[in-house]
Amino acid sequence: MKHYIKVDEWNIIEEGFDPHVNKVSESIFSIGNGRMGQRANFEEAYSGESLLGNYVAGVYYPDKTRVGWWKNGYPEYFAKVLNAANWIGIDIRIGDEVLDLATCQVSGFRRVLNMKAGYLERSFTATLGSGKKVQVHAQRFCSIVDDEAGAIRYRITPLNFDGQLDITPFIDGDVKNQDANYDEKFWEEVQRRTSGCSAYLTLRTKKTGFDVCTGQQFRVYCEGEPVAEPVLPVEAEKYVAGRIVVPVTAGQEVTIEKFAANLSSENHPRETLPDACRELVESCFAKGFDRMLEAQAAAWAAKWEESDIVIEGDAAAQQGIRFNIFQLHQTYTGEDARLNIGPKGFTGEKYGGAAYWDTEAYCIPFYLATAGPQVARNLLLYRYRHLPKAIENAAKLGFSNGAALYPMVTMNGEECHNEWEITFEEIHRNAAIAFAIYNYTRYTGDTAYLADYGLEVLLAIARFWAQRVSWSDARRQYVMLGVTGPNEYENNVNNNWYTNTMAGWCLQYALEALEQVQREAPEKYAALLARIQFHTEGETVQWQHIIRHLCYPEDKALGIFLQQDGYLDKEQVLAKDLDPAQRPLNQHWSWDRILRSCFIKQADVLQGLYFLEDRFDEGTLRRNFDFYEPRTVHESSLSPCVHAIIAARLGDEQRAYEFYLRTSRLDLDDYNNDTEDGLHITSMAGTWMSVVEGFAGMRVRNGELHFAPFLPAKWQSFAFNVRFRGALLKVEVSRQGVRICNHGDQELRIYLYEQAYGVKAQSQLQALRQ
Amino acid sequence: MKHYIKVDEWNIIEEGFDPHVNKVSESIFSIGNGRMGQRANFEEAYSGESLLGNYVAGVYYPDKTRVGWWKNGYPEYFAKVLNAANWIGIDIRIGDEVLDLATCQVSGFRRVLNMKAGYLERSFTATLGSGKKVQVHAQRFCSIVDDEAGAIRYRITPLNFDGQLDITPFIDGDVKNQDANYDEKFWEEVQRRTSGCSAYLTLRTKKTGFDVCTGQQFRVYCEGEPVAEPVLPVEAEKYVAGRIVVPVTAGQEVTIEKFAANLSSENHPRETLPDACRELVESCFAKGFDRMLEAQAAAWAAKWEESDIVIEGDAAAQQGIRFNIFQLHQTYTGEDARLNIGPKGFTGEKYGGAAYWDTEAYCIPFYLATAGPQVARNLLLYRYRHLPKAIENAAKLGFSNGAALYPMVTMNGEECHNEWEITFEEIHRNAAIAFAIYNYTRYTGDTAYLADYGLEVLLAIARFWAQRVSWSDARRQYVMLGVTGPNEYENNVNNNWYTNTMAGWCLQYALEALEQVQREAPEKYAALLARIQFHTEGETVQWQHIIRHLCYPEDKALGIFLQQDGYLDKEQVLAKDLDPAQRPLNQHWSWDRILRSCFIKQADVLQGLYFLEDRFDEGTLRRNFDFYEPRTVHESSLSPCVHAIIAARLGDEQRAYEFYLRTSRLDLDDYNNDTEDGLHITSMAGTWMSVVEGFAGMRVRNGELHFAPFLPAKWQSFAFNVRFRGALLKVEVSRQGVRICNHGDQELRIYLYEQAYGVKAQSQLQALRQ
Repeated sequence: MKHYIKVDEWNIIEEGFDPHVNKVSESIFSIGNGRMGQRANFEEAYSGESLLGNYVAGVYYPDKTRVGWWKNGYPEYFAKVLNAANWIGIDIRIGDEVLDLATCQVSGFRRVLNMKAGYLERSFTATLGSGKKVQVHAQRFCSIVDDEAGAIRYRITPLNFDGQLDITPFIDGDVKNQDANYDEKFWEEVQRRTSGCSAYLTLRTKKTGFDVCTGQQFRVYCEGEPVAEPVLPVEAEKYVAGRIVVPVTAGQEVTIEKFAANLSSENHPRETLPDACRELVESCFAKGFDRMLEAQAAAWAAKWEESDIVIEGDAAAQQGIRFNIFQLHQTYTGEDARLNIGPKGFTGEKYGGAAYWDTEAYCIPFYLATAGPQVARNLLLYRYRHLPKAIENAAKLGFSNGAALYPMVTMNGEECHNEWEITFEEIHRNAAIAFAIYNYTRYTGDTAYLADYGLEVLLAIARFWAQRVSWSDARRQYVMLGVTGPNEYENNVNNNWYTNTMAGWCLQYALEALEQVQREAPEKYAALLARIQFHTEGETVQWQHIIRHLCYPEDKALGIFLQQDGYLDKEQVLAKDLDPAQRPLNQHWSWDRILRSCFIKQADVLQGLYFLEDRFDEGTLRRNFDFYEPRTVHESSLSPCVHAIIAARLGDEQRAYEFYLRTSRLDLDDYNNDTEDGLHITSMAGTWMSVVEGFAGMRVRNGELHFAPFLPAKWQSFAFNVRFRGALLKVEVSRQGVRICNHGDQELRIYLYEQAYGVKAQSQLQALRQ
Repeated sequence: MKHYIKVDEWNIIEEGFDPHVNKVSESIFSIGNGRMGQRANFEEAYSGESLLGNYVAGVYYPDKTRVGWWKNGYPEYFAKVLNAANWIGIDIRIGDEVLDLATCQVSGFRRVLNMKAGYLERSFTATLGSGKKVQVHAQRFCSIVDDEAGAIRYRITPLNFDGQLDITPFIDGDVKNQDANYDEKFWEEVQRRTSGCSAYLTLRTKKTGFDVCTGQQFRVYCEGEPVAEPVLPVEAEKYVAGRIVVPVTAGQEVTIEKFAANLSSENHPRETLPDACRELVESCFAKGFDRMLEAQAAAWAAKWEESDIVIEGDAAAQQGIRFNIFQLHQTYTGEDARLNIGPKGFTGEKYGGAAYWDTEAYCIPFYLATAGPQVARNLLLYRYRHLPKAIENAAKLGFSNGAALYPMVTMNGEECHNEWEITFEEIHRNAAIAFAIYNYTRYTGDTAYLADYGLEVLLAIARFWAQRVSWSDARRQYVMLGVTGPNEYENNVNNNWYTNTMAGWCLQYALEALEQVQREAPEKYAALLARIQFHTEGETVQWQHIIRHLCYPEDKALGIFLQQDGYLDKEQVLAKDLDPAQRPLNQHWSWDRILRSCFIKQADVLQGLYFLEDRFDEGTLRRNFDFYEPRTVHESSLSPCVHAIIAARLGDEQRAYEFYLRTSRLDLDDYNNDTEDGLHITSMAGTWMSVVEGFAGMRVRNGELHFAPFLPAKWQSFAFNVRFRGALLKVEVSRQGVRICNHGDQELRIYLYEQAYGVKAQSQLQALRQ
């Protein structure tokens, strides 16, 4: 845990320069726009510890899989998220000294992420070895209006000397990945062009052949007047720049405005990529920094209008939740159905790949409630388009008849992770993809999606489960052997309750969806069944048999579901009794020790209770929560939110609040000591869920919204907006009670504490505290 | 399966050139001397498919571990066996054509591995594109007398033209490994020297910094007369050669004699390495090819005298067993306690590392019986010297108090494999190391070894097991969770019967060894216990408790031991019912499918029954054999031999013979379609065991030798020598009966079919067939 971030409701603030936390700050202060993203590296040179990172959506490198080469069906590669050309660079030389915070005396350092307007700023005074002092103020953002562009305003003032500032804004493509194994570089130069203050560099990824053109155009002012000095083009392999030497006297402020863009061949024809890049850069240059920043602030205001959560009485919690919402919007906008939400977004290299089950299990609810339905729909279509690859993937593993196994990690539908215990065995991801379809149709009422896309996915997933179980003569049941559940601190277990339960649920839901589509869209139904050669009698009868006879392990004496066969054979120790020095376990214990311990990484049985809550009575929820939570070490960022929601459901407000705190400031406080690798983007949606589904108790049942809010003791109030079937609701929970305003144009029936109310358009439901 | 090797009792013969099997032949015809080894690559250029391989004992590269980077305690590297400089090369140009069998018409091709005398020869006629014809006859060997040297005699005769033979014997260090991931090269040049017909090249491995100096000296004759033409030195980065152009007329035979050596800094001071190499090469050059070959043949004759198995009436079986014995001697001589027996010996890169549990479980019996006790003792000392690293390795995994976990794969005592399910979980290897100590002392009677070295290892291993089990309240037993047994087609299982049983045995044997050393060497006993802070009361009491209360799973109804918890939940299918097109499973099924099937890779429960045979009655052996063998797919080369021995023990002569066939010609017939990667060296010792412990029923019980031979129906007779406690016995089994000659100088008591006989020195025991 760290506590150096200053609490502020709309800003993330770091004061004073501490190189030891620089990589953590580089993650926290990251900026992005769904199309590209950039860690908070410095514009000027920095020779201290840093993880340079500029990431362009959809661009990756298929690193050869190295281990398990003799295991058949093994994925061919691991998809590395690639560090792309550095577009923010502005080298500053003063005489023969380089401005580099690692070698200067730094004072007045302040770094601010302005979440309201969507930009990063940084100011400091640096004293060079020679005693020369400069003051710097830098601002930059990735535009969410021109979402391939970024802009920088860099102001530098010599404080105690007259002389020359030697300024070189550059694009440097000679970058590497931190996780490169042999310092290999993944980019090759295609083209470079420089002329005066413009420079363009087109690079191509090895193997995958993505082209990315990165360009810049800049202008330099002194005391607000354009500088007349000539700009010298500088070029080298994978490097373009323009150099200008500006004579200054002490106290004169020199301003560099640099406009840059990253365009990829995913979005532009390869031939016209450099031209398109030039056009965009020139248009930004023409707009200028101030106008671009105004547009940025306005666009962010609109986003906040829709998705903000306002908390009164707890600034740290307020800052935490806004930070999470801000980063989610920076990562995914829902405008491009080819993109998805990587666990680190654009803030680090770790994990590789772009889409995990995190998207379906944690992010969809956030986008369903805070954006138009097309955003969640695009996330669903992402998987629909990958269905042929998921069928291919299953076939590699020996499944047939159109059974689909979605990859655990993917860029383009192919599996691109490479640990067998995950790739081959953590198959519950398939259920999350089905559940997202259920969640989407439940929330939006868009059942047409089933007929057009959803059912086809559901049937392919159901076919997988039907083949994946096996009949055990010894147990007279279907069993599911050799899986890894959501709790990745177990591998290759038998009859993981969560996986079996969700598999049974998938079969059931597929049967229901079949009936619904047959009823609502009989022609599409018939066409689909013919196309995928689906034989209703044979397959559905078998599915029903499996649903009835699948093993759902439980311990009757304890009244709990059993996480897996044999879980109770383990030494039963509670997390609270662990030596704190040994935590987090995954940084202190060897893998085998973790595996044979009873400790649980993240919600597993409880994840199932969360998804299928309505199937279970409160006693069951409580017994399982009381048994499993104390054995859970929450070493996945996805863990606390589910626990917060269930604790809230069980009326345990205190614990719900504790879990919330852990999720909402996970990165700001570097809770798991790993924020330097990047932010935990997908878990941020879980934070939002903790408030909306946890504290406010929001549920959708039978197409209608339910709330059962409580106010954490420390808070004065909290409020948020949700979209629901065309309506925009504002929910406010305060010491006075609950108010729900319907800003839509139709009456809506809303359940508050299980009581139904009709809420007319533009009116409100108010329940005062007794 | 392939059947292109001609059957011959003393030779391995290939006739006709088939590029499709060239890599298989390169493995089969490999030559080596325990210090270095060379695949049967061609001397002249070859542009077809080939796996170039020259391996120098003890030289490796620590390849960074790539997967599972977030798993704590993970090994730092995977040890690659490195392809070293090519020392056999002789480029031949005729006019502007290169002699290259991939581009010529080849006739009369014949490759012979002469096992009796220990050399490889090859002859062929090649017709070049121009129509020019040459006849070639090449011989070479790795000397077992000068075990860092090799010699080549290459004879070439133009058949239908007069002209010039342009001959370039060379050393090429610009080699790579087949398993390099980025075509990275692992050698850097340190020094090169050429002068006339001599050339020396010193290379250094990256990271590990091993120096290897490879040198050559050659002479060229034409029709037996030295050729007077000048030799031009040729040099390039990592390449040294001498070039000579010899004018010839049709029918004239040109002979190149090339002498080469590979000296490593493991055996010579780095500074004098080139000089030592030159001295050795010059001394070989002075001896000449014929004298060296004579010495080679004589040294091999002595080896055969000790370890041959003679089979009459079945030339294929005879060839198979000799091939196995020949390759074992080529791989390990027992002279250097720093070396061990890699599963591929010097015949390929696969597997990496040098020492597996194969050595203790399969190879020790062969060396115990066919060599002086110092050979097996050196293999034991190899592990003794690695004890501190094994303790360090266990500490990384959270064990304490001097507990040792030996690595699954090692070069220098460090773990150098990198799959967690193997490295962290296949811990039964520890038991094999204890068992080897037991086996050695049982066979040799050298109990002093216990006091000096063995007990220390046994106690450290016992400490590991005592910490590795855990008490299950639910079962009121000690359980051992999360292991991989010898059957690697299961991972992370609980209570693997083999592992638990061997763990219990280790604890028991450690207790017995403690008593024995206390009795026989009380001073050493006291010193050891003080040094390792062993507290007899506490630890031994706990061990006894564990031995009594450890779970040894069984199925009472079937009367069998259970391979692991839940094994019977699997779908029970027999290997004979598998679709032959799906075999071997590991080349057709995905890993998860293999894991959740009931199919067994290699002896697991049966491995325990083999090791601890005397603990079980025949009914138990039979029931387990009859249950498990039909579920076993024998996809490890180590599997058939154990089954052959148990089948023989159960009197099932037919099946014993079938298993024997599978092991004895595994590589000659490319049974598992993987011989091209290299030979299965360690399983070759299993072949020897199949004959000696299987067909001849040899056992050691209470320090005395037992035999219970039978003669496979197809054979006329078989005979072999064994050393036992100073005596040399020749055992002959024929249609007439059994004859055991004592060639030693002391009387020996021998049990034949459970009947004891005193056999005087230089006399024989004969049991005629009734």
